[in-house]
Amino acid sequence: MKPAIAFALVSLALCCSPASAEICSSFLDVVKTLIVGTPSSFETAVDVFSPDADMKVATNGLKKLLDSIPENKKDSIMRLMEKIIKSPQCA
Amino acid sequence: MKPAIAFALVSLALCCSPASAEICSSFLDVVKTLIVGTPSSFETAVDVFSPDADMKVATNGLKKLLDSIPENKKDSIMRLMEKIIKSPQCA
Repeated sequence: MKPAIAFALVSLALCCSPASAEICSSFLDVVKTLIVGTPSSFETAVDVFSPDADMKVATNGLKKLLDSIPENKKDSIMRLMEKIIKSPQCA
Repeated sequence: MKPAIAFALVSLALCCSPASAEICSSFLDVVKTLIVGTPSSFETAVDVFSPDADMKVATNGLKKLLDSIPENKKDSIMRLMEKIIKSPQCA
């Protein structure tokens, strides 16, 4: 294999690895379950990142706070998040 | 240029374009300013995505809610976010 091809393929593999794609989805899982998920689905999404005790207390409190938001406001927040994800900065 | 090289370079350009890298930073700006920013810095980060009136009302309410969280809890949430960003799923 020619060096140029090898270099391009290695770069491609580094940029497009499943690990890189996974970033967004794991992080988005945390944010989405925080807003519209159940407390246990949020905890599951957060536990992926092995939070320490302080982080768990803080994020559980955050979830309770978010759960006090009325559904129509949550819908607007989720619509904005979808808009951000599909925006030119993101697409 | 051989087709294999051309294909690899085009794929590389699509995967590594500044627009793709920008996704994370714009979205992260929104999340970070929501937690630790001033109301106006949060509004600036959100305005990038042209929110409609309902989205603005909902996100302003969300910001007020987040601003009620004590500083030490916010620190724990930011530490978790840094951990997520630097995690194997994300790095």
